[in-house]
Amino acid sequence: MDKIIVQKYGGSSVSSTEKIKLIANKLIQRKKTSPKIVVVVSAMGDTTDDFISMAKDITKSPDKRELDVLMSTGEMISASLLAISLKSLGCESISYNAYQLNIQTSGIHGKSLIDDIDVSKINESLDDGEIVIVTGFQGLNDEGDITTLGRGGSDTSAVALAVKLKGSCEIYTDVDGIYFTDPRKYGEAKKLKEIEYEEMLELASLGAQVMHSRSIELAQKYDVELYVGLSCSDIQGTYIKGSKDMKLEDKVITGLATCDDDAAITIVDIETKSVSPLFENIAVDGVSVDMISQTAPFNNKVNVSFTIPKEDLQQCRGIVKNYVREENIVVDEEITKFSLVGLGMKNTSGVASKVFKIFSENNINIKLITTSEIRITCAINSSCKEVAIKAIAKEFNV
Amino acid sequence: MDKIIVQKYGGSSVSSTEKIKLIANKLIQRKKTSPKIVVVVSAMGDTTDDFISMAKDITKSPDKRELDVLMSTGEMISASLLAISLKSLGCESISYNAYQLNIQTSGIHGKSLIDDIDVSKINESLDDGEIVIVTGFQGLNDEGDITTLGRGGSDTSAVALAVKLKGSCEIYTDVDGIYFTDPRKYGEAKKLKEIEYEEMLELASLGAQVMHSRSIELAQKYDVELYVGLSCSDIQGTYIKGSKDMKLEDKVITGLATCDDDAAITIVDIETKSVSPLFENIAVDGVSVDMISQTAPFNNKVNVSFTIPKEDLQQCRGIVKNYVREENIVVDEEITKFSLVGLGMKNTSGVASKVFKIFSENNINIKLITTSEIRITCAINSSCKEVAIKAIAKEFNV
Repeated sequence: MDKIIVQKYGGSSVSSTEKIKLIANKLIQRKKTSPKIVVVVSAMGDTTDDFISMAKDITKSPDKRELDVLMSTGEMISASLLAISLKSLGCESISYNAYQLNIQTSGIHGKSLIDDIDVSKINESLDDGEIVIVTGFQGLNDEGDITTLGRGGSDTSAVALAVKLKGSCEIYTDVDGIYFTDPRKYGEAKKLKEIEYEEMLELASLGAQVMHSRSIELAQKYDVELYVGLSCSDIQGTYIKGSKDMKLEDKVITGLATCDDDAAITIVDIETKSVSPLFENIAVDGVSVDMISQTAPFNNKVNVSFTIPKEDLQQCRGIVKNYVREENIVVDEEITKFSLVGLGMKNTSGVASKVFKIFSENNINIKLITTSEIRITCAINSSCKEVAIKAIAKEFNV
Repeated sequence: MDKIIVQKYGGSSVSSTEKIKLIANKLIQRKKTSPKIVVVVSAMGDTTDDFISMAKDITKSPDKRELDVLMSTGEMISASLLAISLKSLGCESISYNAYQLNIQTSGIHGKSLIDDIDVSKINESLDDGEIVIVTGFQGLNDEGDITTLGRGGSDTSAVALAVKLKGSCEIYTDVDGIYFTDPRKYGEAKKLKEIEYEEMLELASLGAQVMHSRSIELAQKYDVELYVGLSCSDIQGTYIKGSKDMKLEDKVITGLATCDDDAAITIVDIETKSVSPLFENIAVDGVSVDMISQTAPFNNKVNVSFTIPKEDLQQCRGIVKNYVREENIVVDEEITKFSLVGLGMKNTSGVASKVFKIFSENNINIKLITTSEIRITCAINSSCKEVAIKAIAKEFNV
């Protein structure tokens, strides 16, 4: 039996009728080798933003149930136009919406989670030789009200359909795949042929915006092979899959992410007993602390360093002042969080020491370090960022 | 129990978020005296036309099922925005679409007929004190596909809801009511306070475009009182209702319609036996013949006059030439069809002779006459149109 392919096209891929016609032509070519295709579409270009600004014209806080009704029309528009385009080219096609597929969701409006999808109509249509178009980003709650899935919702719709249809999932977007690191920051960054779910999740949490974490988690849970690539192009993209489906030997480092949005605060000689209440107070104020390191106590006093978003610096400094004198607070706004991700770290000892050695040889001071099983993050001076990327890429041959 | 009011707002009434806010404010005022309000909305302004041109960008003849999906989103957009606006002003409100109300339709895509509506959700919401917004113009067929109702569809949705909810129906549009005759053609035309269904249907068939015949027929069938008026205005509009609900004495003439789109053809000395095949051939060619008159036979020959749309004149002349010589065909392109409509004609004898007398006194020649039970139509010379309207309005005091 032919494997079902679920393709998803993002808003920029369907932003005009011209682009929709291009996709229709690509689909017709693809159908020759993959006869069973389901296509999930996002709203055209800026449609969703336009709807939000219309609603905001009326009120600052539009009712969430009705906002979901409004937003959901965007995908119905692009779905019908793609079906019209396919049929005009002689290719049988049909569009389905959340009602027709009973896409059940739970949770709140604007951030709903998919519980189930009835794919019987899709299977019938596929058996009839039709390319099936499904409106992404939306579902129904128990009351039969339209809900939307929030950021990255159409990706999640596509993966959920692939789960239910036991198919694979191809995400077409405006980037041509996943890179070792952001090519805008490091021009020589290589594109990855494949990446493991966990690695992709780590990179997503570090700011790689190609796909939303939710859809990757769902794909991982049900072992759906994902592909991310450029729409309407023959350039090879990146596969996201489970480690058992990858080459036997993992690369030690798969991805590198940097972030310049944080500042480091170091507090000198704070009372040991004040450390816990200090972080509690910072948390109460909604400031998210990321990296933390603390020295060993001496005379019941310690030094503590941590990073916070730069935008929260003033607020956080105010809280710290309640615990130590001004001159004991050192703020460093010139830091870059430098993260290396790789499933191979699990099985390869000495990755951290190798990284430290590379940094040392290049005169890069490490200010803070945190690690997870498959990630090392160092805070370094921002001016050293480029040198660090090049040195790491060279030494790990990535 | 409070009578349910079904209001319908056309596309020009909801063409911007500003106008939607105005309607929301009007509704909140109205709710104080009429606590149970259901609102049917059309798509905003030119949305439907925009959708059609997007589809036509892709193909000359877009698939009808998918075109209905596309078109139906227009009403979902305006419905959600109106509900958002009402809720932002503190008025409980909820929008429902064709799926949520199971608006069952039959017939073909783009021209479907409403079979039934499940109003249980509407009644629950009304009991909860909510203003209910319903997407007009759309329904579902047996397959659960979205259908649209064609021209005047939202009017029909509103009347159908009024039928099911045993309410009355108010159609808000960009004209302030029904006039004795088109005010653009006769500046002194008076607005009617009320008009009977049959009269309105006759006027609609004669070109009065305020409401589509379908919705009037439906209102007549189930005796739903209709009101037509300007949206967001206190100007009194026109009631359309059954004769038993009107004043005891009908006015003899309620409305006057003129049409300059037809030409008259007169055929002199055509063989009696040729008359029937002539009209058959004209019908086969798709030309719609309106008024016909024939003289008594003399030597097995008669004179026949009839009117046809001017645009079909060349085609029709070609057919006539097969039956008589060119010099026996007289074409008159300078005619106006002049129609008087009034339920009172049924019970008032001599209306026709009074009309003829008025025309005669004003030197207006009548070229052709047809009548129905409540209508008299005369073809007169176009140059006499204004004189005729004034004379009739004066003599019948309308």
